[in-house]
Amino acid sequence: MEFRNVIRNRLDGKNSDEELRLVAQGAADGSVPDYQLSAWLMAAYCRPLSIDETAALTVAMANSGQRIDLTGLPRPWVDKHSTGGVGDKTSLVVLPLLAACGITIVKMSGRGLGITGGTVDKLESIPGFRMDLTPEEMKAQAKEIGIAITGQSQDLAPADKALYAIRDVTATVDSIPLIVSSILSKKIAGGAEIVVLDVKCGSGAFMTNLERASELAQALVLIGNRAGLSTHAVITDMSQPLGRAVGNILEVREAVEILTGGIGRFAELCVALAAHTLVAAGKAADSDEATRLARETLSSGRAADEAKQWFRTQGATLDVFNDRLPEAPIKLVVNNTFGNGWVEQVDASVVGKTVVALGGGRENKSDTIDPLVGVECLKHVADTVQEGEPLFVVHASTEKAAQAACANLLSAISVSSRSVPEPPLILNTYG
Amino acid sequence: MEFRNVIRNRLDGKNSDEELRLVAQGAADGSVPDYQLSAWLMAAYCRPLSIDETAALTVAMANSGQRIDLTGLPRPWVDKHSTGGVGDKTSLVVLPLLAACGITIVKMSGRGLGITGGTVDKLESIPGFRMDLTPEEMKAQAKEIGIAITGQSQDLAPADKALYAIRDVTATVDSIPLIVSSILSKKIAGGAEIVVLDVKCGSGAFMTNLERASELAQALVLIGNRAGLSTHAVITDMSQPLGRAVGNILEVREAVEILTGGIGRFAELCVALAAHTLVAAGKAADSDEATRLARETLSSGRAADEAKQWFRTQGATLDVFNDRLPEAPIKLVVNNTFGNGWVEQVDASVVGKTVVALGGGRENKSDTIDPLVGVECLKHVADTVQEGEPLFVVHASTEKAAQAACANLLSAISVSSRSVPEPPLILNTYG
Repeated sequence: MEFRNVIRNRLDGKNSDEELRLVAQGAADGSVPDYQLSAWLMAAYCRPLSIDETAALTVAMANSGQRIDLTGLPRPWVDKHSTGGVGDKTSLVVLPLLAACGITIVKMSGRGLGITGGTVDKLESIPGFRMDLTPEEMKAQAKEIGIAITGQSQDLAPADKALYAIRDVTATVDSIPLIVSSILSKKIAGGAEIVVLDVKCGSGAFMTNLERASELAQALVLIGNRAGLSTHAVITDMSQPLGRAVGNILEVREAVEILTGGIGRFAELCVALAAHTLVAAGKAADSDEATRLARETLSSGRAADEAKQWFRTQGATLDVFNDRLPEAPIKLVVNNTFGNGWVEQVDASVVGKTVVALGGGRENKSDTIDPLVGVECLKHVADTVQEGEPLFVVHASTEKAAQAACANLLSAISVSSRSVPEPPLILNTYG
Repeated sequence: MEFRNVIRNRLDGKNSDEELRLVAQGAADGSVPDYQLSAWLMAAYCRPLSIDETAALTVAMANSGQRIDLTGLPRPWVDKHSTGGVGDKTSLVVLPLLAACGITIVKMSGRGLGITGGTVDKLESIPGFRMDLTPEEMKAQAKEIGIAITGQSQDLAPADKALYAIRDVTATVDSIPLIVSSILSKKIAGGAEIVVLDVKCGSGAFMTNLERASELAQALVLIGNRAGLSTHAVITDMSQPLGRAVGNILEVREAVEILTGGIGRFAELCVALAAHTLVAAGKAADSDEATRLARETLSSGRAADEAKQWFRTQGATLDVFNDRLPEAPIKLVVNNTFGNGWVEQVDASVVGKTVVALGGGRENKSDTIDPLVGVECLKHVADTVQEGEPLFVVHASTEKAAQAACANLLSAISVSSRSVPEPPLILNTYG
């Protein structure tokens, strides 16, 4: 089959399953040149794939490399995925919580790009932590302790890696069928049979409005189920940073706090997502029972024990639960200059960009990051605030970078003289 | 400027002149990778360039390499271009005719691809003929004898060469703004100030219906004039092969016949196109005067003398006007088996494909061609025909290829028991 015809058929709005397999296989093994893949991706951007086509492409991408076969491990095999946000360290809490409830967790995670962080970067900020487990090591570790996470490699869904690299530089990232196939192909290749997707919505997320987030969530559920994966989606608020910390090691520290009894909005989100997953996985009859189980798993310390075992097994040479974590050399407090009142906004996008500028995130995929820098957000929307009270703590590598961050952060916040309602945590659920 | 943003702006329907210069320059010097150019081309296919944008891209492509400056040569400086058809050897007759009328002809020609032949291939079938003149050689020869033609090189409009190579393999050839910029950028780079475009329409052409051909012709005239080139377009019939011969050396022979007194439908088209150009170039007051001048230039032998001088000057080692031309080893006559009647159809597409299959054309750009093979079409639409009368003569390199060609050719023709009107030669003119 000439690939030119695959492109032409995309322009005519119809690709066969065989053609979609050629796209995935050609991307994975390099047999279709980048300039033809790029033309096909742009044609797919302009003439979007149907539900059936997206499901077929997803399966073809999952089959483009190895697929982890979890046969023999306790079921269900579950993955939880976030579309990415500012300060989103949910996986670090929810995954060990779920594993502690007897669910097998096997997951491929991504690196951060732009304002959205990545679980790989957060875990790699722990000295010694290995994010390069092979499929065989993944299965062996999951068998041993119920949980294993790896970064993206050439082994699993290599078609996604190749196609995403092209989409990134050709303005074709923002296409729901392409986003869906990218996310779900990795879940299928990773061995999951149930997946819970946290679709972030707001200025700190890829989807900035509820309409687009809902469109993505519904497409994920529909196509995931069509592709044979029990798929559930939760749209959650990402208009302000999630929790206190934004920046890699700072987020690990906050996750440890939640695993060891911390409370607040971020802890509530972890409980809600865990509860949603426990119902989906058949570990609780309904949301109330699941919520109780999630809280109890946290408060009893079983989630923390699971996390400790996980980090140690996966190579951590620092005990993040007991040892002192490394810190950035400069810390600068940003105080409130807006008078007394209620916090009206903490713009997640501005905070995210500030952390990227500090060196804690990537502008481009090849950038290296500084795991120690970041921002602590001490106030959230609806909190009361006094003139002169601390709003942020900047963790920086240089005094100059810290000063620049301070100026940015003041533009992220607004204070109202009237009380402000707390925004909802969960905006919608599907599946 | 990040090229990703140039692509994004194309998707939003608007590129600045500076961005279009970046497309052309990036294609010409390789500074924008193929996969990004390919994404931009597909975005331009789906979100077509406006008239102004196409004019800006055309000029940018013309400026991507050298531009031949004809200052000092007799004006006007004219190019005549065909969008390509089956048996279209018009340039071989019309160009020396125009040069004999005192017009300076400088032209960059293309090779054939698919069923449409190319002037470069036809002229190269003459032993010794050079199609690799440099811009400096072009100007010197045009100064000496009034006419010079070269093939596409890295010197002139290199952006077009690079962009066309990508379009060819990414199903983005069929976009009017991209076609227009490709054609006109080469005319501008070649030094022309007036151009006459022969837009072929019918089964043997790229534009198979009059609506699309008219759209292309109008766009060419509008954009050419916007880009500073006096542009004229003539839509001509390409539903049946043009003239008798299809195949490279066979077409040279037919051109020589017309230059030395041959008559018929093809000769009439040459006169009409030459007359149109003479009016555009200010060498005749109106169509009637121009037609008389064109006929007289042919019948007086002045066009033939100009052609002889041209071929010799440009390296021909064979005198195609006097020497015996080389021939293919196998000749096979295809006789009429459809009974007595009138020829209703000679499908140019079928004849064109037959010649490609004989080795006289290219399926892919890298194919080599056999200059001697081809088909002579002895009958045209509206001709009477008797049972058993010869319809075609196949010129082939092997007996097997000749037999296969015969079978194909019979499917090209249909005979009616009623008389059939002769189809018009010229379907429309613009500019």
